[in-house]
Formats: sequence, structure tokens, C-alpha cells
Amino acid sequence: MARTSFPLSQVYRLLEPGPVVLLTTAQNGRPNVMTMSWHTMIEFEPPLVGCVISDRNHSFGMLQATKECVINIPTVELAQKVVGCGNTSGRKLDKFRRFGLTPVPATRVAAPLIDECYAALECRLVDAKLAAKYCFFILEVLKAWVDRSKKDPRTLHHLGKGAFMVAGRTITLRSKKK
Amino acid sequence: MARTSFPLSQVYRLLEPGPVVLLTTAQNGRPNVMTMSWHTMIEFEPPLVGCVISDRNHSFGMLQATKECVINIPTVELAQKVVGCGNTSGRKLDKFRRFGLTPVPATRVAAPLIDECYAALECRLVDAKLAAKYCFFILEVLKAWVDRSKKDPRTLHHLGKGAFMVAGRTITLRSKKK
Repeated sequence: MARTSFPLSQVYRLLEPGPVVLLTTAQNGRPNVMTMSWHTMIEFEPPLVGCVISDRNHSFGMLQATKECVINIPTVELAQKVVGCGNTSGRKLDKFRRFGLTPVPATRVAAPLIDECYAALECRLVDAKLAAKYCFFILEVLKAWVDRSKKDPRTLHHLGKGAFMVAGRTITLRSKKK
Repeated sequence: MARTSFPLSQVYRLLEPGPVVLLTTAQNGRPNVMTMSWHTMIEFEPPLVGCVISDRNHSFGMLQATKECVINIPTVELAQKVVGCGNTSGRKLDKFRRFGLTPVPATRVAAPLIDECYAALECRLVDAKLAAKYCFFILEVLKAWVDRSKKDPRTLHHLGKGAFMVAGRTITLRSKKK
């Protein structure tokens, strides 16, 4: 991936359309990755992201312990790997090796970027008040990366039971809003 | 709209792909509508939805006061109205009249359904603990409606500054997951 820095003020434009993401964590030098669709922007800048990570997921404990993760955004070419990461557990498996994903060092956190993804957001856990009740975490994006050669990234949008909507055409209307 | 009841256990399949939605509220017999992209599923069943409503929005106070709203899901045919609702305030304007949207009575809440939308979720506010700090609300979906004649709804997915991704094709992979 031809990674270039992406302005934090524009991160909402990557996450608002609702793509499936691959969340990476790392603990004691071992990286893990999970598939996630339950996320939302919370604030523009500094960009805050809310997300649900089930306490049945290995990543739940890893995020709680390390307070760091990376949100990686895959495109349709990675669909099989995305489903694979969603159907397996990092407790038993090195998912990077199993699914042929390449961990790349991040700059602000120990969790790795995934080289095959077109964008990546290095995040720090800033609020876990709703973690016990709803498994809901609030993350601050510290650093964002994007492959600018992907003009209209064909992101995946989960419809349930193995079905995904693939990002279609873009339309532009006059708007005063961000 | 040919509205039929939709199982609560399947609501995540409408919201996970990240569509722009129109959130309706009603107070003292006056309905309002706002455009919203910052939402996420929180729990499958009963379905819980987390969403951010800025305290600059008229709907913020209306939801706090009435504890009820409807999440309506529009398709691309409504793009101009969606942008219009996002660029105006219900403090000064009857947006239903201005943008030619038709309010239809809901069954469980006072806020109206929008007849032109292909799906609608009647919601009750169940947790506002993060409202003061993040304008974040947790809603429970009490009743869901969908127009089953729309097989592949061309939902809108906000990319910022008036740009929207329109839902594209659907792919299906083998998966053990919901």
C-alpha cells in the first residue's frame, strides 16, 4: 500500500459511510485482528470513534489491557479475509498468518497497520465507561493513513449472514455541511 | 410505501451498512426531522442503537424531552430532501412541508414515520448517560417497518461535503456469523 498521511479533520469521511473494518490490537508482541461493523463517529476533531467489541472477542481484553488499536479499512478484494477474520478467534489462531495479512508497524501505537487495507486509523482508548454494560468503547484517532491511489474505494458494508453491499457510485449535491 | 412489520432480531441488517437516516421527533403535536449519519448498532435483541445528535440540533432537546423518535431510512431518490433536512433547522422551518415529506402515525411512539422512506424504526430513548459529554444517545427499537418490494435499496452513505456513496451490488460469502 502507498500510504500517505491523512488529515485528522477528514477522518469522518472514511468512517461515516459505514464500512466493515478490521480492528488490530497487539499484546506482548503478538498482534490480533477482528472484523467489526458496529462503529460510529462521535466527534470531528480530534476525531473520536465509538465502537462495540463483544466481550466474547479476544480483542475485548486486549484493548482493555493495552488501550490501543488500529482501525483498518478493507476493500472488496479482501472480502474472503474479512469474513475469515470474523469467523475465527485470535485465542487459537494467528489470523495474520492464516489469512495472509501483512502487519506493518504503526507510528503512535503498538498495534499494527494491515498493509493490504486502503486506510488505517491509529487509535487510543479514551473512554470505557460504557464497556461493562454495552461493550462500547470510545477511541481517539491519533494518526490516519490512506492510499490516495484508491479514488473510489469499494468498501464492504455488512448486511448480515455473509452478505455485503459493495460501495457503488458517488453522487455530489450542493450542501453547506461538512 | 407498502409497509410491513420487520422482525426486531433482523434490525441490524438495516443499520450495519451505515446508511444516512432521517430521524423524526414530535413535541406538542409538531413533528421535526433531521439528517443523521453518526449511528451504530449496540445490541442485537432487543435492538439497541447508539447515535450522536449535536446539541446545536433542535432534535437534541426534543429527544431529551419526549424520549421518543423514529429512525427512517431513505434511498437515493430522496437525496435532495436528505441534504435539505441536513442544511436547515426545525426551529425556524416545518421541514416536512418544505421538503414534501409525508408524516405517517407510528404505533409505539408519537414521532411520525416518513412515508417516502423504505424502512422505519420506532425508538425509545433508554440511556442518555453520555449525552452531556458526547451528545451520544442509546435507543431501543420497539417496532420496525420495511417496504419489502425494495429488494436492493439504494441507500445513501455520507462521504462529506455533499458527496454520498450510493449502495452498490451485493455479494454473499459463506459465513457462520449473523
